[in-house]
Amino acid sequence: MAQRLTHAQTAPVSASQKPQLARREWKVALIGFGTVGKSVAKILSQDVKSPFALTHIFNRNVGRKKRDGLPARIKWTEDIEDVLGSDADIVIELIGGLDPAGTWIDRALRSGKSVVTANKQLICRRGAGLMKTARDAGRRLEFGASVAGGIPAIIGIQEGLAGDRLFKIAGILNGTCNFILTKMDSSGATFQEALKEAQELGFAEADPTADVDGYDARAKLVILTQAGLHVDVRDEQILTRSISTIDAVDFLYAGDLNCTIRQVSIAQKDTSNGLRLFAAVQPAIIPLTSLMAHVQGSQNLVMATGEYAGRMVFSGYGAGGDPTAVAVISDLYSIARTAGAPSETLPMVPEIADSVSSGFTVPHYVRFVVRDRPGILAETATILAKYQIGIDAVLQKPGFPGTELSFVMTLEACDSAVLQKALTEIARLDFHVKPPLCLPIFSD
Amino acid sequence: MAQRLTHAQTAPVSASQKPQLARREWKVALIGFGTVGKSVAKILSQDVKSPFALTHIFNRNVGRKKRDGLPARIKWTEDIEDVLGSDADIVIELIGGLDPAGTWIDRALRSGKSVVTANKQLICRRGAGLMKTARDAGRRLEFGASVAGGIPAIIGIQEGLAGDRLFKIAGILNGTCNFILTKMDSSGATFQEALKEAQELGFAEADPTADVDGYDARAKLVILTQAGLHVDVRDEQILTRSISTIDAVDFLYAGDLNCTIRQVSIAQKDTSNGLRLFAAVQPAIIPLTSLMAHVQGSQNLVMATGEYAGRMVFSGYGAGGDPTAVAVISDLYSIARTAGAPSETLPMVPEIADSVSSGFTVPHYVRFVVRDRPGILAETATILAKYQIGIDAVLQKPGFPGTELSFVMTLEACDSAVLQKALTEIARLDFHVKPPLCLPIFSD
Repeated sequence: MAQRLTHAQTAPVSASQKPQLARREWKVALIGFGTVGKSVAKILSQDVKSPFALTHIFNRNVGRKKRDGLPARIKWTEDIEDVLGSDADIVIELIGGLDPAGTWIDRALRSGKSVVTANKQLICRRGAGLMKTARDAGRRLEFGASVAGGIPAIIGIQEGLAGDRLFKIAGILNGTCNFILTKMDSSGATFQEALKEAQELGFAEADPTADVDGYDARAKLVILTQAGLHVDVRDEQILTRSISTIDAVDFLYAGDLNCTIRQVSIAQKDTSNGLRLFAAVQPAIIPLTSLMAHVQGSQNLVMATGEYAGRMVFSGYGAGGDPTAVAVISDLYSIARTAGAPSETLPMVPEIADSVSSGFTVPHYVRFVVRDRPGILAETATILAKYQIGIDAVLQKPGFPGTELSFVMTLEACDSAVLQKALTEIARLDFHVKPPLCLPIFSD
Repeated sequence: MAQRLTHAQTAPVSASQKPQLARREWKVALIGFGTVGKSVAKILSQDVKSPFALTHIFNRNVGRKKRDGLPARIKWTEDIEDVLGSDADIVIELIGGLDPAGTWIDRALRSGKSVVTANKQLICRRGAGLMKTARDAGRRLEFGASVAGGIPAIIGIQEGLAGDRLFKIAGILNGTCNFILTKMDSSGATFQEALKEAQELGFAEADPTADVDGYDARAKLVILTQAGLHVDVRDEQILTRSISTIDAVDFLYAGDLNCTIRQVSIAQKDTSNGLRLFAAVQPAIIPLTSLMAHVQGSQNLVMATGEYAGRMVFSGYGAGGDPTAVAVISDLYSIARTAGAPSETLPMVPEIADSVSSGFTVPHYVRFVVRDRPGILAETATILAKYQIGIDAVLQKPGFPGTELSFVMTLEACDSAVLQKALTEIARLDFHVKPPLCLPIFSD
């Protein structure tokens, strides 16, 4: 009895007794004045009714960054102590990376400030520890902008679907990959051509590795998995495959299958035999009827499937200065709503998965580029048969030179891990010009 | 100075000083044990870790409704005083209608209970007053289940996009209409046939007026307009048009235009000259490339467009027992998160629109059913020209009898209100077998 609090003990004071927090002003300090930081400052200064006053902007070489049009009261600084030692109520961290961002957030929380961050790598790696620091300090740490930019996916999943039991999260979480793949699809461009255009337009960085090889999406998938599936998974446990192996010809074959290609991130919980998590970030074949096929350019999409409400979809602009700034500012409002106090969240201790694997049992698409000779199909089919993998169809477009002939097999549903073994064996045969490309076929 | 609270005054006590609310149990009373109520009771009782304990279930003829499988401690009652006089922390209202639901919610709030409701008509008509009662009582009133069932549209718009300035909300808000229209589209059924099937499958009520004539969607549009656009609008200010005038032939013509037909609800704010609101609930022509065209069966979709983050989309199951119950239970968690205290929302006083009209300036589809004679096209085109309305195309499928010939005109973008005047004049001509059907063509 004594351990359970009664209603009377926990009843809040009535609204009339409470200070009118709604009218107060929140002092906000900004760490990082890049694309998103500039948008945050712009949007806050454009809203005359905003309860948030920007008091500090920290950046290296801040003199060069300083802008007209922002309130004169803002203190521009390149000394982080000016921010951490200030009377700001909320610190927005937008410098990215693990350090010094993590140390600064930790110090801000311990000094009684709430923190809003868009730092996916940091939340992915050290989110749990920082959340604990925030709770211990009686403050809030919000990271809605770390996944899918302006799309309210974290709040949608964590709060809007709190009443469901989610078992699957899938989505298009990287706008750079989606831009490149939709460009290849619409124009017939090669990967390198589409990447170059993405770089010229500012949709891809000079070193595109984090995006095209899937590490960016993987960090977001880890955050969504923890927030929505309540499963504790580390990023290095999740398989990633690069989209750089996709050729223009794959879009032709995908088209023949009434499909297209997208970088898809999936995490799926299976509790039928312990807690198994299936998770991967990889290019995949997607039917044109799927909502994922309709995500164009740099947009994002997050699907969450629950036992009770079925599949819910959130989509929109997942990156860019203004959309990400909207997520940051929405988090400011969220903190204001609880007057900066930690919300009374229920014990959602993430479970540790007994196993994490990428062995989805789905149909597959395998594209071969070969130096033609008799027997290729027979030898390939023989190895697949040995692993009990059924062939659904063989597609071969006319017009390829015999020295570099592309053909495709679609395979009946099988375990990705088993198929990988078969493909390793097939790859040893002598006719390959390029390694076989294997993509799962995901339908909604 | 004295009017603005300083940080020190509003700083919350540290977490270690606070009672561990997260571990408490919330007593929950349920008013209404229909489809949604049964799902709520089922889901709550299936979750062994749930912090919510169902203590009361109120319904008429409760003896007949009583179920095995629910906890024995639940008090089943047909006396509302048992609920209102109980020590329940939260009351869930699921009986619908304005009265007695409104009175009971008001009394529950005044007696110190928070309230969760799925009652769209009540929130549409009396939401503002009930919200004030809740704030004055230091309690919460949540209505996430009143719009789009399981889709977290209210929280997504109100909290997840709090940092944006939304100016347009559009969506498919009525699952019954969407079921009927997608059925007509896929099977070639008439409206009456599709309605009959919807009724047999439980997707439409015996009296389908509220759904097919748009009143249900209109109440939801009012709630979304207030929550997202912060504009105070009354339901009777918003034009509704029935989907019952749609014929099977309209899907044939829509198909020729690479389009389909959906019941679309739109509210759009224009602040270029005072505050004007354009709003309507009506069947509309939708390009197949639009996300709205991909909403199948009884699903819903909500699009919110803001100045900064662009267009965000939320979609999923908008009705049904389990999805709606998820929204109800998510609202319970939301109340638990602030320990039942009203959230410190910022002053979002809805503005009153200077005008509310349905005069969207968009292209239109007009379908005529006529007794054929020479001169029909000339007379029709002459009247359109008089109103400066340009004709984009004329479509006429072969094979209609001359006594009942259907043809379609697509018109260049024009004000719906001006077009209505032209059509009133055209409708007076002698060749009509049915009144002309006019649908706006909405592209995303």
